[in-house]
Amino acid sequence: MYTVVFIEPESSGNIGALARVMKNFGLRDLILVNPQCKIDREAKTRAKHAFDVIEKARTVKEFGKIGDFDLVIGTTGKIVKGYDEVRHSITPRELAKQMRGNNRVALVFGREGIGLKNDELAKCDIVVHIPTDHRYPVMNISHAAAIVFYELFSADKRLGSGASSREKKILFDHFEKILNGLEGIRDKKKVAKVFRNVMNRAMIEGKEAHTLAGALNEIKKKV
Amino acid sequence: MYTVVFIEPESSGNIGALARVMKNFGLRDLILVNPQCKIDREAKTRAKHAFDVIEKARTVKEFGKIGDFDLVIGTTGKIVKGYDEVRHSITPRELAKQMRGNNRVALVFGREGIGLKNDELAKCDIVVHIPTDHRYPVMNISHAAAIVFYELFSADKRLGSGASSREKKILFDHFEKILNGLEGIRDKKKVAKVFRNVMNRAMIEGKEAHTLAGALNEIKKKV
Repeated sequence: MYTVVFIEPESSGNIGALARVMKNFGLRDLILVNPQCKIDREAKTRAKHAFDVIEKARTVKEFGKIGDFDLVIGTTGKIVKGYDEVRHSITPRELAKQMRGNNRVALVFGREGIGLKNDELAKCDIVVHIPTDHRYPVMNISHAAAIVFYELFSADKRLGSGASSREKKILFDHFEKILNGLEGIRDKKKVAKVFRNVMNRAMIEGKEAHTLAGALNEIKKKV
Repeated sequence: MYTVVFIEPESSGNIGALARVMKNFGLRDLILVNPQCKIDREAKTRAKHAFDVIEKARTVKEFGKIGDFDLVIGTTGKIVKGYDEVRHSITPRELAKQMRGNNRVALVFGREGIGLKNDELAKCDIVVHIPTDHRYPVMNISHAAAIVFYELFSADKRLGSGASSREKKILFDHFEKILNGLEGIRDKKKVAKVFRNVMNRAMIEGKEAHTLAGALNEIKKKV
């Protein structure tokens, strides 16, 4: 269900540490995006009994090549005060509470130095931020991962099945077409993005997406 | 309030990683009990901007010498089925829920290889165990620490400010009025309920509710 994506890792040791904590929480599927380092002895030392996770990892050249997921979850250490439609984030606790079964989910962690870039965050359906002390908020990537994995592992498993990327696309397309038929809205892209953010954060279920899409379709005819 | 105690650390890198994650969650007070390694360059590399925590750390010869605390909390990776008065444990979540202010609390982590020994656990007032995948439960000490610190730090703190009931009412009213203007929907009450459920589960923020309400208001005029 979960695939872990590590974008442009710079340290072999961190890949090892990430693999170990993945396996601690039952995760096996790792994608490395454009690694900036070789897998050396340090990865093996830090992975301990989880080096098989690294051996089986896929490597791709860019974020756009990770494949098809129903939900892409980014992580960020930076939080912007006030509203920001890209970095508006939830906590790992909130994420875990809302997670549904069935879906193919990518958990994306950024490079050690600067994390995920804005254009990468914009590609994520949900952005998770770990609340830390403001005097030193920059966490090691495997520590951040440990907390996210722990929350997902510990969450009560919920019934219900999340909307697929296809079901969500239908819903979002209806909404955008309605917006396009209106004159009184200045920033339609922003409104559409807020709508998508809220639906994703709610982990809208397949049936709910279907119900709302039906209503939006009726609205579309009128507008 | 919290003092972190690391018993017989074997790896300088782990001391560095522990210091970093301490500082991420606002903890500064570290005691090293009978270290089995020197503080070398690896500690500095892994501590990043938290090396001051290590510089100020106290070193004592044995666990009995850590000083006076109101509560001593041990951590264990091993869990014994059934009741065990030494290792009977609670989760980090349960710990965080129950924690009160003011006390002098020691958070004790054991050596990397075998953790805390039974006689050490017996000296702890509370033992915390992190639920993990049973196939590979042995966590790195700084990963375990990250999760315990995160839980204590996060207790009862929420990010962002949710929409007020008034802000949500405006949003929901707009949506219902739009629905009332449509002929093609059979169960309008159900559609409205699904919309409210999804918005509430998303813990929609005040500003988001305002943005979407503005768009719905425009739609309402058209319908």
